[in-house]
Amino acid sequence: MSDPRTTRAWPHPDVVADLAALRAAAPLTHCITNVVVSNVTANVLLATGASPAMVHAPEEAGDLAAVAGGLLVNLGTVTAEQGEAARVAVRAAVGAGVPWVLDPVAVGPLPMRTALAHELLEHRPAVVRANASEVLALAGGTGGRGVDATSGPEAALDAARELVAATGAVVAISGPVDHLVTADGVLHVPGGDVLLTRVTGAGCALGALVAAFLAVAPDPLRAATAAHAVVAVAAERASSASRGPGSFAVGLLDELSRLDTHAH
Amino acid sequence: MSDPRTTRAWPHPDVVADLAALRAAAPLTHCITNVVVSNVTANVLLATGASPAMVHAPEEAGDLAAVAGGLLVNLGTVTAEQGEAARVAVRAAVGAGVPWVLDPVAVGPLPMRTALAHELLEHRPAVVRANASEVLALAGGTGGRGVDATSGPEAALDAARELVAATGAVVAISGPVDHLVTADGVLHVPGGDVLLTRVTGAGCALGALVAAFLAVAPDPLRAATAAHAVVAVAAERASSASRGPGSFAVGLLDELSRLDTHAH
Amino acid sequence: MSDPRTTRAWPHPDVVADLAALRAAAPLTHCITNVVVSNVTANVLLATGASPAMVHAPEEAGDLAAVAGGLLVNLGTVTAEQGEAARVAVRAAVGAGVPWVLDPVAVGPLPMRTALAHELLEHRPAVVRANASEVLALAGGTGGRGVDATSGPEAALDAARELVAATGAVVAISGPVDHLVTADGVLHVPGGDVLLTRVTGAGCALGALVAAFLAVAPDPLRAATAAHAVVAVAAERASSASRGPGSFAVGLLDELSRLDTHAH
Repeated sequence: MSDPRTTRAWPHPDVVADLAALRAAAPLTHCITNVVVSNVTANVLLATGASPAMVHAPEEAGDLAAVAGGLLVNLGTVTAEQGEAARVAVRAAVGAGVPWVLDPVAVGPLPMRTALAHELLEHRPAVVRANASEVLALAGGTGGRGVDATSGPEAALDAARELVAATGAVVAISGPVDHLVTADGVLHVPGGDVLLTRVTGAGCALGALVAAFLAVAPDPLRAATAAHAVVAVAAERASSASRGPGSFAVGLLDELSRLDTHAH
Repeated sequence: MSDPRTTRAWPHPDVVADLAALRAAAPLTHCITNVVVSNVTANVLLATGASPAMVHAPEEAGDLAAVAGGLLVNLGTVTAEQGEAARVAVRAAVGAGVPWVLDPVAVGPLPMRTALAHELLEHRPAVVRANASEVLALAGGTGGRGVDATSGPEAALDAARELVAATGAVVAISGPVDHLVTADGVLHVPGGDVLLTRVTGAGCALGALVAAFLAVAPDPLRAATAAHAVVAVAAERASSASRGPGSFAVGLLDELSRLDTHAH
Repeated sequence: MSDPRTTRAWPHPDVVADLAALRAAAPLTHCITNVVVSNVTANVLLATGASPAMVHAPEEAGDLAAVAGGLLVNLGTVTAEQGEAARVAVRAAVGAGVPWVLDPVAVGPLPMRTALAHELLEHRPAVVRANASEVLALAGGTGGRGVDATSGPEAALDAARELVAATGAVVAISGPVDHLVTADGVLHVPGGDVLLTRVTGAGCALGALVAAFLAVAPDPLRAATAAHAVVAVAAERASSASRGPGSFAVGLLDELSRLDTHAH
């Protein structure tokens, strides 16, 4: 796991360089995301150095997506109308060459979002960010493989490879060690903290940060790697100074803003 | 008020036991709630030990409600579509034997939600959590009894008893001392802190926590008691270390996560 | 800029008096605002001393607006339905003599909200709160004057004067020094902190606070001045004790609640 050829963590030079590029560009990051996490998502983007924008009316989502640096579609509280906004935004993004991220929250047991996720996958996201059970559900078509939602990323590696083959996306599976799967293999991003699972939106905000890095990184794997490594190190630092999930969430934003790209 | 037969507070053995059970089970708690408080609601559930899920598309709300441990319906920012999701979710919950909580935010002066609350009450929530004026509005049918919204729970006790008789629900009235009303009498939960009224969503999150405890407590009164007592003690501890409502809200999450079920 | 005739800052006696009046009245402040900032908006209102209420169903928004002390319409994540709620609320507010604030987030490039903003402007908001590029877009009809979104308030002064002449509103332009424009001139509110631009919703919450002050201040310019001056001083104090945007956002709420109207 600590093989340097297959592991990336802060302060790997690529991660540091991509964060410096993010801060220099402050890319407009269009997030169509769920109502529970929209605030923390915007704050994570701002703290790291990106410029968040949330527009999810179908009448406007395409105009914004076409001029964004990256687009996130997160299905957490999707409705029929927001689903239509996602369709419009993804088509506009693809048409304009804007890379996009799919975060297929809770696909599998819930039918509307599962069908929508499959439909959106045909528009070739640059990155799919998900947990193990969501990856299994997407690859299997209907979920229901009997894998516990708390399974680690390892349980979903075969499914992730299927998804990579079918869509061309980088598939990022969150877990104690994040697994970033491409046709060339698996990159591991260690670190983070269990408190990331005790505050809402940490994973969703990570998906948005991948979208932001897509605007500046040389390729989708680099973008996904930078986002995961940056959150992992900020979480470690925030955890050591926190008394619980409340102070951890505050510290996470502080630490994201304090990451030093010059000292390395 | 401090009669031990009619007062419950942390660390009453029932409350400690129910919190231990909550943490062991981490019950899936489906919240159809308002956009203002969805984030703090999820964070309160996570900090205490439950697993929040917010799904409010009518196409999906029933699928989730049927497999949840408990369901919350909060009408704070209800729209026609979310109202339909609430109907679907409540029917599915009742059909599957999943207990549910109604938080009838601002019923009385606002017509759509007031009609919806009355309609939903026919599906027998396990608990109604509200403030005094909301209880008065629900019992009176139209509100408009001229009672000040800042009235304490005592002013709504007769109305609460009517509501208990009509619906079979435990009626939990929030106030400086929370009053939990059943056909057998009134249980008082003291404690808390005035800062709970200076941060948005404390009451709404409390309703969600009642729904979470319904999944593990022996009966609805125990569930309501545990939720109110746990928030009360965490609020007292958070208040003593806070400089104002911002640090109080952070400390509340920390203290909920730190409640020790082993020391008692 | 430090001319006392054209500059207002805490603890100017008018600002102190208006804050004392706000806390005494705790005005019901109806916010139709975007999902990203609804939580922080409610918390800023509560910390300062107002009573927030968010209702955005078209079926109910008018009932609440007619009895509120002030109304905010913020177009950040407007949808067709929320736009209809805004129309209903503004008509009800105007009919009942309730003053209202327009925060035209991102008008210019996005067509639906731009048309809606122009339509709503005909109902004479008491205050328009915006950044420089939004003021330029509103005054110019379509935006597209090629002004950078990061332009300071000075770049939008002529456009603001056009908007004042056309609508009668006070036009408040946020920036390093906030500019409050009326037919009689420009009032400057200095202070604040760059961290206000690194947390989401600081400007949106400021718009809500203007709506709250409209309920108690002698005129719209006084209301806008008080809101801007109060946020500016709280931000300065919060910044000096913060490690980054996370702790700054927490401290901002604490400091708003701690502003002392008696010491001056």
